[in-house]
Amino acid sequence: MKEPVKDRFTVTYRLFCREGEAEVMAEALCIEQTIEFPLQYVRKENIGREVIGRVESLRKAGRRCYDAVISFLDETAGPDFPQFLNVLFGNSSLKPGIRVERIDLSPHMLGFFKGPRFGIDGLRKRCGAYDRPLLCTAIKPLGLPARELAHRAYRFAYGGIDIIKDDHGLSNQVFAPFKERASRCAEAIHKANARTGGAAIYAPNITSGCDELFERAVFAKRVGAGAFLISPGLAGYDAVKRIASSDDLDLPLIYHPAFQGSFVTNGMSGISPAVLFGELPRLAGSDAAIFPNFGGRFTFSKASCGGVRDGCVRDMTGIRKIFPVPGGGMGLSSLDMMKDFYGTDVAFLIGGDLFAHGNDIVSTCRMFREIVMSV
Amino acid sequence: MKEPVKDRFTVTYRLFCREGEAEVMAEALCIEQTIEFPLQYVRKENIGREVIGRVESLRKAGRRCYDAVISFLDETAGPDFPQFLNVLFGNSSLKPGIRVERIDLSPHMLGFFKGPRFGIDGLRKRCGAYDRPLLCTAIKPLGLPARELAHRAYRFAYGGIDIIKDDHGLSNQVFAPFKERASRCAEAIHKANARTGGAAIYAPNITSGCDELFERAVFAKRVGAGAFLISPGLAGYDAVKRIASSDDLDLPLIYHPAFQGSFVTNGMSGISPAVLFGELPRLAGSDAAIFPNFGGRFTFSKASCGGVRDGCVRDMTGIRKIFPVPGGGMGLSSLDMMKDFYGTDVAFLIGGDLFAHGNDIVSTCRMFREIVMSV
Repeated sequence: MKEPVKDRFTVTYRLFCREGEAEVMAEALCIEQTIEFPLQYVRKENIGREVIGRVESLRKAGRRCYDAVISFLDETAGPDFPQFLNVLFGNSSLKPGIRVERIDLSPHMLGFFKGPRFGIDGLRKRCGAYDRPLLCTAIKPLGLPARELAHRAYRFAYGGIDIIKDDHGLSNQVFAPFKERASRCAEAIHKANARTGGAAIYAPNITSGCDELFERAVFAKRVGAGAFLISPGLAGYDAVKRIASSDDLDLPLIYHPAFQGSFVTNGMSGISPAVLFGELPRLAGSDAAIFPNFGGRFTFSKASCGGVRDGCVRDMTGIRKIFPVPGGGMGLSSLDMMKDFYGTDVAFLIGGDLFAHGNDIVSTCRMFREIVMSV
Repeated sequence: MKEPVKDRFTVTYRLFCREGEAEVMAEALCIEQTIEFPLQYVRKENIGREVIGRVESLRKAGRRCYDAVISFLDETAGPDFPQFLNVLFGNSSLKPGIRVERIDLSPHMLGFFKGPRFGIDGLRKRCGAYDRPLLCTAIKPLGLPARELAHRAYRFAYGGIDIIKDDHGLSNQVFAPFKERASRCAEAIHKANARTGGAAIYAPNITSGCDELFERAVFAKRVGAGAFLISPGLAGYDAVKRIASSDDLDLPLIYHPAFQGSFVTNGMSGISPAVLFGELPRLAGSDAAIFPNFGGRFTFSKASCGGVRDGCVRDMTGIRKIFPVPGGGMGLSSLDMMKDFYGTDVAFLIGGDLFAHGNDIVSTCRMFREIVMSV
């Protein structure tokens, strides 16, 4: 047996409980997430105490809530991303009143999870867009044939959108099969770029089972896609990590939160928006993270969205910053408010609303761009 | 373009809302889960109305809650399991007050998702255990060397446990690397079987990233494992589906709920225990599903657990029934109550409590077996 490395990473859990219960709850968490075994039956000579989670600090964070910083031995969790998630919140997700608030990896652990390949700087370079927010939209709806989706993609690119992604519901359906859609949309966007001198990129949705996901990625890159869209809630985080570290599939990755909402719909358990939409996609290797903005179709607060932004850009030694991509029912009229809130390092995702300002989508995209570029 | 098949599957969503809001909420769900696009901008000539979800019925289910049965065109979701989950609850998971209650697939869709290879009958045959509940335990704790874990496995098998699984936190850590652990534990259990004439099976945890998961499965089968443990919340459901339909990896699959608790910790949104711990693992191809029993370390109600049992065994044309495996802090003293509640088609999972009745684990396992077999 190799000598285990003694570095530890820490997770901050918010515990929602009554005065006096927090300590017991934190200690239970240390065991539940590691040995999951009654402490009294652990024969001391056989396993090192360091294998068990350790409460590093515990402080009151508000009325009936406490923040417990718990450290775990790196070797219990890394380098396997699924196992890291298991130590983070495997069984404890099943207990109410526990919310993952923040992750701080050791330098050793950051060596396992290298994060995004591009990050904010790299993605800006790809899009040729510096010192301003990026513009993002989605090709939809499901049901349109690939030819028509590609026509929309062309107009978006011609109007000045930077990142044109598949709607996350476009998979490989008969209406617009993946290969045909990816080929046509990539070609349409390259054609628009050739006319505008722009650098719009197409991000097809490669979310699928593991083999299929990689086949789609290889195909999409070959036909000229500029990024990949992945929903790790459906495909698993490991797919993100593997593509981010693949030598061949060296395109930016955009995270989509599909099937992960239940982590954040109950403020008193689950995973904080900052971690779910910021830190986790970032650690796994996404370069941009889509999440529901405040004031849209979803019900997220400004505080939650500020948390996501921080999770995307706060210092994480050696891990690149990524774009927060607020969306979910946003429109041109929301942009001024969003610019004030998010600043420059953000990508604004507007979908259906681009169709709400008359039939000339190119003009609407140009309005989108003008509003974003105006000071 | 091929002519799309017109079969539809239905999902029952429980909507938590005020009188008069349910209809609007149900209609919004139909759009959110499919075209995700403002209906007024959908050009009627281009996409068929059948692509959009359709409210089949809506009825009051209690105070401030309504059950909406919504149908979706099979072709929007299958045969890709991740995309099926996306149509089921992709974006709507991000909205509070929506809970997935039940899934009813069309025969066409059931052709895509064939479910478990073994099911209750097949797993009974493997274990040589008919007309009684199965006995299940976990090898742990994390931190023990493989040799000692194997010694525990031997004693469990010798004492009469049917299914001996890795703790879900045992991955490929330095303490007991996967290959060494799988080899030693499988060997130990075969040795015990040779002495007892029994048919205990070993279920190593193969949860990991996709490639690694399959490598582990292949290796484990070769060294004599009798089943596989997978947490699809970590590895993705597609891994379960692929193993369940693989010609070579023809062993029973045991589902573990790690990292999925947030779907069920808030009763007013997420996924019902019946679907999360029953229908989904079953459709994906698991033969047994572990979930937290009432009265243990977790906080599940009897009603929830009854729901899980129903999700595991209710009629789903052509899809085999699977074992519910209640666990999570259960002990010998809970067995009579559990027998009353679950009947015969169940596997009882007892972990740490097998160490709470003296040092002779073999005797404790025999007590476990006697209690289960007594009428």
